[in-house]
Amino acid sequence: MWRREDTLPIKIGNIVIGGGNPVAVQSMTNTRTEDVPATVSQIKRLEKAGCELVRVAVPTKDSALKLGEIKKSISIPLIADLHFDLSLGFIALEMGVDKIRINPGTVPNRQILKDLVLEAKARNVPIRVGVNKGSLPDSYSKDREGLVKCALDYVKLIEDWGYTNLVVSIKSSDPEETVNANVLLASYVRYPISLGVTEAGGGWRGIVKSSIGLALALKEGIGDTVRVSLTGDPVMEVKVAYEVLRSLNLRRRGVNLIACPTCGRCQVDLESYYQEVESALENITVPIDVAVMGCSVNGPGEARLADCGVAFGKDKAVFFIKGNIIGTFSPREAIKKLISYVKEAERYKDENVTAFLLSTEGDA
Amino acid sequence: MWRREDTLPIKIGNIVIGGGNPVAVQSMTNTRTEDVPATVSQIKRLEKAGCELVRVAVPTKDSALKLGEIKKSISIPLIADLHFDLSLGFIALEMGVDKIRINPGTVPNRQILKDLVLEAKARNVPIRVGVNKGSLPDSYSKDREGLVKCALDYVKLIEDWGYTNLVVSIKSSDPEETVNANVLLASYVRYPISLGVTEAGGGWRGIVKSSIGLALALKEGIGDTVRVSLTGDPVMEVKVAYEVLRSLNLRRRGVNLIACPTCGRCQVDLESYYQEVESALENITVPIDVAVMGCSVNGPGEARLADCGVAFGKDKAVFFIKGNIIGTFSPREAIKKLISYVKEAERYKDENVTAFLLSTEGDA
Repeated sequence: MWRREDTLPIKIGNIVIGGGNPVAVQSMTNTRTEDVPATVSQIKRLEKAGCELVRVAVPTKDSALKLGEIKKSISIPLIADLHFDLSLGFIALEMGVDKIRINPGTVPNRQILKDLVLEAKARNVPIRVGVNKGSLPDSYSKDREGLVKCALDYVKLIEDWGYTNLVVSIKSSDPEETVNANVLLASYVRYPISLGVTEAGGGWRGIVKSSIGLALALKEGIGDTVRVSLTGDPVMEVKVAYEVLRSLNLRRRGVNLIACPTCGRCQVDLESYYQEVESALENITVPIDVAVMGCSVNGPGEARLADCGVAFGKDKAVFFIKGNIIGTFSPREAIKKLISYVKEAERYKDENVTAFLLSTEGDA
Repeated sequence: MWRREDTLPIKIGNIVIGGGNPVAVQSMTNTRTEDVPATVSQIKRLEKAGCELVRVAVPTKDSALKLGEIKKSISIPLIADLHFDLSLGFIALEMGVDKIRINPGTVPNRQILKDLVLEAKARNVPIRVGVNKGSLPDSYSKDREGLVKCALDYVKLIEDWGYTNLVVSIKSSDPEETVNANVLLASYVRYPISLGVTEAGGGWRGIVKSSIGLALALKEGIGDTVRVSLTGDPVMEVKVAYEVLRSLNLRRRGVNLIACPTCGRCQVDLESYYQEVESALENITVPIDVAVMGCSVNGPGEARLADCGVAFGKDKAVFFIKGNIIGTFSPREAIKKLISYVKEAERYKDENVTAFLLSTEGDA
């Protein structure tokens, strides 16, 4: 089986995926692509959240013609998502997109696909062969084998036309089927795999399905780039992707929040403190473990093990940095100190915030 | 390694966990246990969401004395969570709780633990030895080996006192550590394992960590009962637990929502239709796959593969039941039909809703 370390490196704009490079986080806009300001603004929000590759739908000639303007205004590689009308792919390539995605289920005929592949080859722009169960051509069985066979057939077709600058994906709305199909796929192809559970739904439902599908495949060494699909704001897709990668110790970015579920033992409104901390630290990028704990059972232990933490008692809170007790404060004061500590850590962009630690000790 | 099929069956009130029984879903209240109306009301909400076992904190004598009244008012087994003051465990047993949980990190001395174990034995009430990294006794290393050694030491202690009606858990706030510790634990003990990632945080962060920790262990055959820990309303813990179990095809309960993330190709406000469907079908218990899809790429395919589904175009929607097109309707009408179809399926408690299907066909 070809694992992440063994896949071929493929360059997409300024990012290389595959070949053991860090698993790249991608997302897709849900604005009308024709609306350049809205699309660029959403991509900038995605970039800020850590998105490393962005895909946009290209359903119309107007949307294809806007890709150049979009590309000029953003910093991450731009991917054109093509279905049905592949003639738009030529415009997308002309506009300088960094990758194109084709779907075997929406290719109108092989001649136009071949022409597009040769154009991409001439420009050395990578192509993703992206198979989705919801649009699998009728000639394939609607199961793992059918999904894999479809991907392999189209990869072979493109290879036969002399192009190997490829990425492959197989997505199902069933997390287990997605994992099983990708494991089988990885036994056949050495191209980087773009991993995701499709049509996962929104909110908690989609987060569960995506987390499980991604984690089970990534744990097998499969997946060079990931996309979490959620009904709603795509910024959440990026946040969830990083949380998945952090949970598997594959990437670390931003705050890892450790907080108890609360129980009848908790004597503060922990949920509101939790939300305050989460919201204050939303844009932190430095990897840091932050504990917000409600009682004396696991509170002091978790707060001590984290980079920084607060363990609440009744009307008071102990603030820890790197396992050391900084002092006992009012809940409000402790939360304030926690937040400013993390912001200092972000400012120094490393975890050496001794100066701040010393300046804080005096207040205890 | 002892997997789910091999673990010993342990009876907790009217539920048996272990021995290959379905993975039971549990949660814990976060009301003050002393407040009986609030606690009972929360447990009733948990029951409605499918919670099969519920744990309550017992931090005070008053809370222990209220357990009998709570137990009388609920239908699922009640578990007393004991820390520090184990004398409260005797009251809890007297009040008729169905299981007690002790934590090696909060046992004040071995004599009182022994007395409590013998009392539980006399009443044949199971005990969970619940180890948490945040409260691991100092004498153990703060890693997988230390966590497992602590659990095994306390299991051995209780076995030496002649009691084997046990459940074991090891929880860390790191999903991978939780999985690795439970895999090691399962190589030593045949008692059912209560699985969960502790202090996972709230919202999307906690959902990701819990989903991954649970899925990776369950996939290894480990976990006889699960608890998702989330900062916030515990009803969400139960919903997430079922979504995890459904994603692994271990349990099926309620609606599986399949919906696209939307993109520049989508011409309706899919997110609001999604939320409308989700909210209308919140209390459905019959297992059913429902697709709400935004465009012609994967829409018709997913809607056809689901038990029922709607695939939107511009200003119209195709409604499918069991792979058959029922008709093309306005978006509003299609959503209405989808919701009433699922409610009919719930009413008949099976998937044989032919009568409804026939009555709907006429409208097309």
